[in-house]
Amino acid sequence: MRGEFNLIHTYFAPLAGEAGLGLKDDAALLTPPAGKQLVITQDAMTAGIHFFADDPADKIAQKLLRVNLSDLAAKGAEPLGYFLSLLMPADTTESWIAAFAHGLAVDQPRYPIQLMGGDTSRINGPLTLSLTAIGTLSTGRMWQRKGAKIGDYLYMTGTLGDAALGLQARHGKIPANPHLLERYLLPEPRFFQSPHITSAMDISDGLLQDAGHLAAASEVKLIIETARLPLSEAAKPYRESHLQMLVTGGDDYEILFTLPPDSPMPQADFSLTRIGHVEAGSGAKLLDFKGTQLDFPHTGWQHF
Amino acid sequence: MRGEFNLIHTYFAPLAGEAGLGLKDDAALLTPPAGKQLVITQDAMTAGIHFFADDPADKIAQKLLRVNLSDLAAKGAEPLGYFLSLLMPADTTESWIAAFAHGLAVDQPRYPIQLMGGDTSRINGPLTLSLTAIGTLSTGRMWQRKGAKIGDYLYMTGTLGDAALGLQARHGKIPANPHLLERYLLPEPRFFQSPHITSAMDISDGLLQDAGHLAAASEVKLIIETARLPLSEAAKPYRESHLQMLVTGGDDYEILFTLPPDSPMPQADFSLTRIGHVEAGSGAKLLDFKGTQLDFPHTGWQHF
Repeated sequence: MRGEFNLIHTYFAPLAGEAGLGLKDDAALLTPPAGKQLVITQDAMTAGIHFFADDPADKIAQKLLRVNLSDLAAKGAEPLGYFLSLLMPADTTESWIAAFAHGLAVDQPRYPIQLMGGDTSRINGPLTLSLTAIGTLSTGRMWQRKGAKIGDYLYMTGTLGDAALGLQARHGKIPANPHLLERYLLPEPRFFQSPHITSAMDISDGLLQDAGHLAAASEVKLIIETARLPLSEAAKPYRESHLQMLVTGGDDYEILFTLPPDSPMPQADFSLTRIGHVEAGSGAKLLDFKGTQLDFPHTGWQHF
Repeated sequence: MRGEFNLIHTYFAPLAGEAGLGLKDDAALLTPPAGKQLVITQDAMTAGIHFFADDPADKIAQKLLRVNLSDLAAKGAEPLGYFLSLLMPADTTESWIAAFAHGLAVDQPRYPIQLMGGDTSRINGPLTLSLTAIGTLSTGRMWQRKGAKIGDYLYMTGTLGDAALGLQARHGKIPANPHLLERYLLPEPRFFQSPHITSAMDISDGLLQDAGHLAAASEVKLIIETARLPLSEAAKPYRESHLQMLVTGGDDYEILFTLPPDSPMPQADFSLTRIGHVEAGSGAKLLDFKGTQLDFPHTGWQHF
């Protein structure tokens, strides 16, 4: 395999935007757009925890980029650039690196976003990645977890629980289904805009837990109605048997948000579903089909 | 041990500056200072490669922060904030996390810099860290690797090779010496300012290799004179026996820079030593005491 600098020049320098200075310097140089604020997020992933070591390299790269893009989308920001730390075990091949970089090259124009810098190194352990994504938005327009108002409706993008079911399918615990497997492997960041949204976050750690965080930050109670939860055709058979998994499983990367009832619905090329509303109080409460509150021993994913 | 969110609240939220939103949201919100550009750098470290797993937790945290601060210093930037990815093995204790956060708390006011966000997770492997540091500078004033002019003098900050010798001492290959051991454990970022500097970089991967990178970016030849190399009292005994190690060992985190001969010397509270000059040509050449060129089979550190 070529040396570090040759590999960076061959596979990563072509991904670099202007701020990356061709990846030939020690740092990126970013001129912030006038009148904009920067939204910055960082998420790490490591084989055996966040993905399988034998997942395709291009999909690993895309998942890493997209979980960070999801955080930008959930804050109402537009993607600008990213930094990548890539720590590779000794048996990593050059073709693996080429496939990994190809995954980034495929996704970059889609959002669009460009590489600004980063770091590559060996690790005496599993493939481990960290990505820092930078986005822009007009000053004062960041969607935060705080801001939900009593009387607002509660919405989510896309569908719930596909990724958690995909992981079950991956483990052979439910029948394999291409849609579910793909949704575990590759999240879809949900970029859309609306000046009326009062609070938002992505639900990567499980709907109930994340809704609880939004409720706490906004100092309100969120009511979620089971009957309203949007499920894909592939997930519908599991609505009753796997309800807890659907509402507490992670890796959805859908956006939970609140909107006053009289506000126009945002434009989006994916579904936006009202799943509940905001009341006075605290916590996130899930109601079953009869309106009875459901409680689960755990509400989501913690990493330790 | 407490759960993820409780640990973040207890140990890391107190380190967060305004942009970090109390570490209560999914992303940071940064309002770029008017008239400034942002310099952004990211470096990862993993136990067994960049440090020893049994190094004190506070020193690991400080080394991580400082290797990134060194890149900001080498670009002429002032520190603003940072993002931390912390991937911890299953046997990590809460007291280790407390000590790690304490190391950051000690260093933050020194530079000064504040935590803006990040991510914590488990890893099925060694302690692994990634840090993204953001600095500011006046528009157009970034020191880059390119820009060295024929006739410029070549300088470096501090002293050469202490960290590489410290690593040898750590391995028991040379006698233990507190100064050398400390310099391996904890780099000292070299912040100073000068409007006259024509090119700069830090020499974290070895003087000769890094000088070669600066020469390539600037399209010039750098001549380095062995007799001029600044050595600490602890390193002087190794000037002849370990010359190759001194000029190719990594972890110095000193700054190499070029300055026209008629420019005033920058103000700094550490030494600035002229070690050579810039000529037409290419590459970095080391001359011995008699002016004869020295060649080594490798010139520095590559991570794979």
